[in-house]
Amino acid sequence: MTKNPTACLLIIGNEVLSGRTRDANLQFLATRLGEMGIPLREVRVIPDVEATIVGTVNEVRAKFDHVFTTGGIGPTHDDITSECIAKAFGVPWEPQPVAWERLAGHYARQTPPGDFNAARQRMATMPRGCVLIDNGISIAPGFSMENVHVMAGVPRIMQAMFEILAPTLKGGVPVKSRTVWAAGLQEGAIAAGLEAIQQRFPQLDIGSYPFYRSTGNGVALVAKGTEEAEVVAAGEAITAFIAGMGHTPIQGEPD
Amino acid sequence: MTKNPTACLLIIGNEVLSGRTRDANLQFLATRLGEMGIPLREVRVIPDVEATIVGTVNEVRAKFDHVFTTGGIGPTHDDITSECIAKAFGVPWEPQPVAWERLAGHYARQTPPGDFNAARQRMATMPRGCVLIDNGISIAPGFSMENVHVMAGVPRIMQAMFEILAPTLKGGVPVKSRTVWAAGLQEGAIAAGLEAIQQRFPQLDIGSYPFYRSTGNGVALVAKGTEEAEVVAAGEAITAFIAGMGHTPIQGEPD
Repeated sequence: MTKNPTACLLIIGNEVLSGRTRDANLQFLATRLGEMGIPLREVRVIPDVEATIVGTVNEVRAKFDHVFTTGGIGPTHDDITSECIAKAFGVPWEPQPVAWERLAGHYARQTPPGDFNAARQRMATMPRGCVLIDNGISIAPGFSMENVHVMAGVPRIMQAMFEILAPTLKGGVPVKSRTVWAAGLQEGAIAAGLEAIQQRFPQLDIGSYPFYRSTGNGVALVAKGTEEAEVVAAGEAITAFIAGMGHTPIQGEPD
Repeated sequence: MTKNPTACLLIIGNEVLSGRTRDANLQFLATRLGEMGIPLREVRVIPDVEATIVGTVNEVRAKFDHVFTTGGIGPTHDDITSECIAKAFGVPWEPQPVAWERLAGHYARQTPPGDFNAARQRMATMPRGCVLIDNGISIAPGFSMENVHVMAGVPRIMQAMFEILAPTLKGGVPVKSRTVWAAGLQEGAIAAGLEAIQQRFPQLDIGSYPFYRSTGNGVALVAKGTEEAEVVAAGEAITAFIAGMGHTPIQGEPD
């Protein structure tokens, strides 16, 4: 049985907690991290409040192998993630020379030249000792501070940053899965049989997810784990079990 | 200044952490709770792991006025939320007579009669002392245990449960908001002026959210708070500030 590194995601921003903005980063990171064998074990959505950010970062960076943050690294007064990370690590928050040069150059090249003002300079101010995460889209970099990876909140910028960061992370064994769809079946009718299969494959996570579609209801049964042979065997066991109940199972790749 | 009750949401389920399922409950609850003056202050997504659920529930129920959970109350082996709530409160997990009767009757009325088997009986097994939350859609009730409100994960069932529960919750002063859209403006150009407005209205949350659309980029500036007159005044101050920069602001209701 393989022990994979673990990940936690902090989504930082009042706008997600107020319902104004629908988060679009959780599912992307959950999927990509699973593929890399760094399964996401917890997500927290927290407000733009210094004590909360500092306290939460310190709690989860001790508990998980990797912490990813999204949001709060722009130029406005409510963007306080970067200075909170410095406080969490007890290091100065100071101009980062490479980020400073990139941003100063970016605004100088605008027509007419943009003002590299105090607000924009905040995007080049970072915890001492951090490592930049390049931003090919909107210039202002993210950064890693030890095992805490600080990224933008805007999904396409976050995704670009993550793809720069990903090759530098030591992954584990990718999580494999098999899904069996059982149309017309109710969870309550298959629970005991499914639990018996879970007991045969204790290293796997076997989950049951009802679906409701205009073409009919049913249940999706998912086996997940790092040992492919076991995942395949569990998928076959589930298929045989559903067929034994007189239903036609459909087995497939991860859906 | 009004002190509103606070809320925390626990989204319980491996399927959200693996990326298989995209959560659709956060935004609904964030919006509805804001309208009721019970602002959502934190969200956690946690796996179907007993120690994690029990520990998290006990942590957050002490910290927030209300805790809402979604997911993990179905009949299958991975649905362990209900028994974990009983463990968190240190009470027996036992048949709940009203839920039991409803579910037994429901399966008896099916054609052909459904089996009210051990798996389905689990959905009528609850922490001693809980108060049911009716489920008009799929029968199996949720429940409240003191300030912890346990709901289904399927969005339309969760929403129906919430609307049954909502009138029983003592709300606070609803959060009001004004949004000013400033097309063609960059956050870095307005950050200092916006911060000055935030300082004039310290009781409000003033946020800046860039948008990227095919018709052009810009920034949405949002003032939120419980004092309507202040929210209106802040919206006007933001509008005047943007107009003063030579741009045409559009002010509106919450977007």
